[in-house]
Amino acid sequence: MLQADLLIKNVKVFNSAFKHFYDSAVAVRAGRILYVGTQALNQIEAKATVDGGGQYLVPGLIDIHLHIESSMITPPAFSEMLLRNGVTTCVAEPHEIANVFGMDGVLSFLALSQKCAADIFYGIPSSVPSTALETSGGTIGTEDLHRLLQDPRVLCLGEVMDCRTLVQYPDSHIAQMVAAMQRERNMPIIEGHCPRFRGLALARILFCGVDSDHTEQTPQGMRERIANGMFVEIQEKSLTQEIIDFCVKNPVGGHFCFVTDDVMADQLQKGHLNRLVRKAIALGMPPEDAIYAASASPAARMNLRDRGSVAPGKLADFLLLDDLRQFRVKQVYKRGVLVKENKKENKAAGHFFPERFYHSVHLPLRTEKDFLVFTPPGSQAVHCRVIAVQPGTTFTEEQIVRLPATQGRLNWKSNSQLCLGTVFERHHGSGRVGMGLLTGSCLHAGAAATSYAHDHHNLFVVGRDERDMALAANMVIKNGGGICVVRDGKVLELVPLAVGGILSEEPAEQVGRKVACATAALRALGWQHENPIMSLCTVSLPVSPALKLTDRGLVDVQGGHIVPLFLEEE
Amino acid sequence: MLQADLLIKNVKVFNSAFKHFYDSAVAVRAGRILYVGTQALNQIEAKATVDGGGQYLVPGLIDIHLHIESSMITPPAFSEMLLRNGVTTCVAEPHEIANVFGMDGVLSFLALSQKCAADIFYGIPSSVPSTALETSGGTIGTEDLHRLLQDPRVLCLGEVMDCRTLVQYPDSHIAQMVAAMQRERNMPIIEGHCPRFRGLALARILFCGVDSDHTEQTPQGMRERIANGMFVEIQEKSLTQEIIDFCVKNPVGGHFCFVTDDVMADQLQKGHLNRLVRKAIALGMPPEDAIYAASASPAARMNLRDRGSVAPGKLADFLLLDDLRQFRVKQVYKRGVLVKENKKENKAAGHFFPERFYHSVHLPLRTEKDFLVFTPPGSQAVHCRVIAVQPGTTFTEEQIVRLPATQGRLNWKSNSQLCLGTVFERHHGSGRVGMGLLTGSCLHAGAAATSYAHDHHNLFVVGRDERDMALAANMVIKNGGGICVVRDGKVLELVPLAVGGILSEEPAEQVGRKVACATAALRALGWQHENPIMSLCTVSLPVSPALKLTDRGLVDVQGGHIVPLFLEEE
Repeated sequence: MLQADLLIKNVKVFNSAFKHFYDSAVAVRAGRILYVGTQALNQIEAKATVDGGGQYLVPGLIDIHLHIESSMITPPAFSEMLLRNGVTTCVAEPHEIANVFGMDGVLSFLALSQKCAADIFYGIPSSVPSTALETSGGTIGTEDLHRLLQDPRVLCLGEVMDCRTLVQYPDSHIAQMVAAMQRERNMPIIEGHCPRFRGLALARILFCGVDSDHTEQTPQGMRERIANGMFVEIQEKSLTQEIIDFCVKNPVGGHFCFVTDDVMADQLQKGHLNRLVRKAIALGMPPEDAIYAASASPAARMNLRDRGSVAPGKLADFLLLDDLRQFRVKQVYKRGVLVKENKKENKAAGHFFPERFYHSVHLPLRTEKDFLVFTPPGSQAVHCRVIAVQPGTTFTEEQIVRLPATQGRLNWKSNSQLCLGTVFERHHGSGRVGMGLLTGSCLHAGAAATSYAHDHHNLFVVGRDERDMALAANMVIKNGGGICVVRDGKVLELVPLAVGGILSEEPAEQVGRKVACATAALRALGWQHENPIMSLCTVSLPVSPALKLTDRGLVDVQGGHIVPLFLEEE
Repeated sequence: MLQADLLIKNVKVFNSAFKHFYDSAVAVRAGRILYVGTQALNQIEAKATVDGGGQYLVPGLIDIHLHIESSMITPPAFSEMLLRNGVTTCVAEPHEIANVFGMDGVLSFLALSQKCAADIFYGIPSSVPSTALETSGGTIGTEDLHRLLQDPRVLCLGEVMDCRTLVQYPDSHIAQMVAAMQRERNMPIIEGHCPRFRGLALARILFCGVDSDHTEQTPQGMRERIANGMFVEIQEKSLTQEIIDFCVKNPVGGHFCFVTDDVMADQLQKGHLNRLVRKAIALGMPPEDAIYAASASPAARMNLRDRGSVAPGKLADFLLLDDLRQFRVKQVYKRGVLVKENKKENKAAGHFFPERFYHSVHLPLRTEKDFLVFTPPGSQAVHCRVIAVQPGTTFTEEQIVRLPATQGRLNWKSNSQLCLGTVFERHHGSGRVGMGLLTGSCLHAGAAATSYAHDHHNLFVVGRDERDMALAANMVIKNGGGICVVRDGKVLELVPLAVGGILSEEPAEQVGRKVACATAALRALGWQHENPIMSLCTVSLPVSPALKLTDRGLVDVQGGHIVPLFLEEE
């Protein structure tokens, strides 16, 4: 008799090769699948036998493109949330923590992930800082890349944000990172970010070695990517009826997968990659294909040869579902051990990081005076560049507004459509401040401050009133980081983010509730957006068009340089 | 304008993702494909433009399971033959040269391959020697494995010959090699040899980490392998109508590929992997699927991410065909350079190896007396174990024959069905000799000698007459190795194999002609087999059933031990 640790009988097992369910049993030994079938069961002696009750048994889900920091929780807390949702493996790209702490940040994530129940692999952040037009707390260079590749959990070069620069400037930081990756590894996996690229521009990205894309897709763009050998990672915003129709009608299985990219803490309570699978099925994708796109397909993309299917020798990572089309995960097994029975408590709260990670907002308290905007001597009025925040996108537009100046100060409140925005450099104590004006879908009252501000994570404060702005800023500073919403001298909501100013160590549910409250508060103050916090935190992101604000000033993203707040008068 | 080195216009380009040909053009830069399409051609400036004349452009073929030594030529000569047949990449498993020279042999192949025009990757020989029941010239152990993995051209652990031992004996050499591979590499590729295994036995092989098979397939066995996550490598003997029908009717693309395994020097003149593609098409496989199974599919198996399709960023390895169904290769491009226009001359003859490689048959000349078989004192007659050689297989059977003894010597010539076989240890000068008798499909006259004798490559001599046997043996010894066929005191044919006694440095055509002549001579002397040389050289192979002969004596393969020539009399 052959010994097994576990035998699960009476299940419909998903076969990844034939994309089909077969009535079968699964035997597990030492965390791996020993046997799938029924004929040899009389030759197997199991320490424990489970009746699967006729449920569906599918591979643990694999998410190969996500950022843990987007959920504002730590790797251990994130791991628990993954497993609760049936995700047993992920590939994380930790560029947010890298922007705050550089290699120390990445290494802290690697160390913490070692003990996580979910397998957390990593991509090397390729674009830290994202531009030279911002001040980050840390950088990731080619020497760091070399060091990170010594860890077998590091699988790829993560998300090349700026493919245009890669293609055009062989001396650029990103081109050097790609070249270093190609020197270090034979035929490396290099993840891309290729919004809207087509034709020769797309070919040139592939020629440079970048061969995946996770940006928003159209059917035509997706077809062109796949035909050119690119792997497409479908995140929720690409999960449209037309994309699902395209995937169903064309033989593209194995050329795409589902990924979550960024899931806010409040949304994480509602699901993770499992939500995308469910949504794909609801939009008409056969469950077999949707499961494949969240298991075997991403595993192959990352050359994770030991998982992605339920077959002998593979890790015993699998889920039991009582309803296939609803994709209702009832039990989760990781390495053959039951880790979840639909429990809703998150235990991974703690104090995980080195002490200095809790003291990363290096700024004195702010006063109203810190929010005064000085105009050129003698000016009566100035033409100002204004960031127009758009609902439904993180792209902004540039507007020009004429404003009066009084006693050398800009009287921006004279225009009822405007907010003031300031970015205080908070990593190195440089005292550098970037100032700008916002309009459009942002605040019509009060103020908000956040130390979670893409990608540099300086302290970004926006508001209608200097007193509220100072209060919001100081709440964040006093808490060592966070997101704060204020109105009329009162703190409406606070999300403390004590770790590097971007993460909380509270239980995921608690963080989720606070994020939801802050979201609601921002909305109530006028920030109309499907994700107001994301919108707030990307006003400072100098890689997505058009006009953004960093500690170095206003950034003309397309032009790739800093522009002054005031237009030169002719 | 974007610069390109080469632009090929007016071709039907195979798209691996959609398995479809599209009228297109291909631009090449720096040995890689820059662009595939037509729309952007006005933005590309090429140093050279070629009119493809409407031909088919397909990826260079990739053969991931073969043994160069089976063709008895050197890596440079082999590379030329590969390219002539449209094979631009292969993964070779050099266990023959390893059996003669150990690591030095493998390293010599790696060094010689560096300068070859075809890309020759390697698997680590996992089973050198193949058993403990033979004396090889070298061994490959776990330290060698570690050293070989430092070379990026080493992709996998090659052909685990003896899966039964792997599964049953965790302390065995093969189990240690597999364990070492798994320690050294995350999720390594381990190639298997799993003849006829099914059910739990097959699952246990997969559980050990071996996940491919290249032995003869049945449709049922192939289905079971693929369903269990095994990759199937189809060699010519599996290229049957029923296997092709299975592949056409089932969604198994990507789970199998074509491989050549062993191609004798004479057969190599007729083609290589291209022959299998042609044959598959002739048996009814759509050309697109056959091409996929010889390019994209094997590339994915070996994680060769930079080749296997014609797409931007991939190596510019491709073929032009004027006839798709005949798979007639007219031009071969390797890294964007035309390497072949159907030329039939092989230039890679030379003197490539260290001097000692030419002096590897360490044996004094033989005399008739070396072929006397002594019987136990006083015996009048003995029962002997006899190797029955079968036509059409390398498996043998055991027969028992009663033979008279005269003056202490076995009178085996008294039975007109018998040959004598001897294996002289030739690596270490031990003087060890194994003796046995053969019957069935072997010689009815004369003698043959070979230093190419699987896997240990000692000097195997078989014959009807001691004088002929000594002559054949001495021809091989004097030439530093080879295959020699003799009759009535005359040398009929000689294939000199001066390198390690297993390879020739003569041009491939010449070696092929000599191999063909030796084959014909063996046949004329009665060795009826589709491949008499293969049959001859595997009488000494102690891993395929049932009774074999090494320098240590007769091997009961199933029992796994040496058995005496004479049965003990009761």
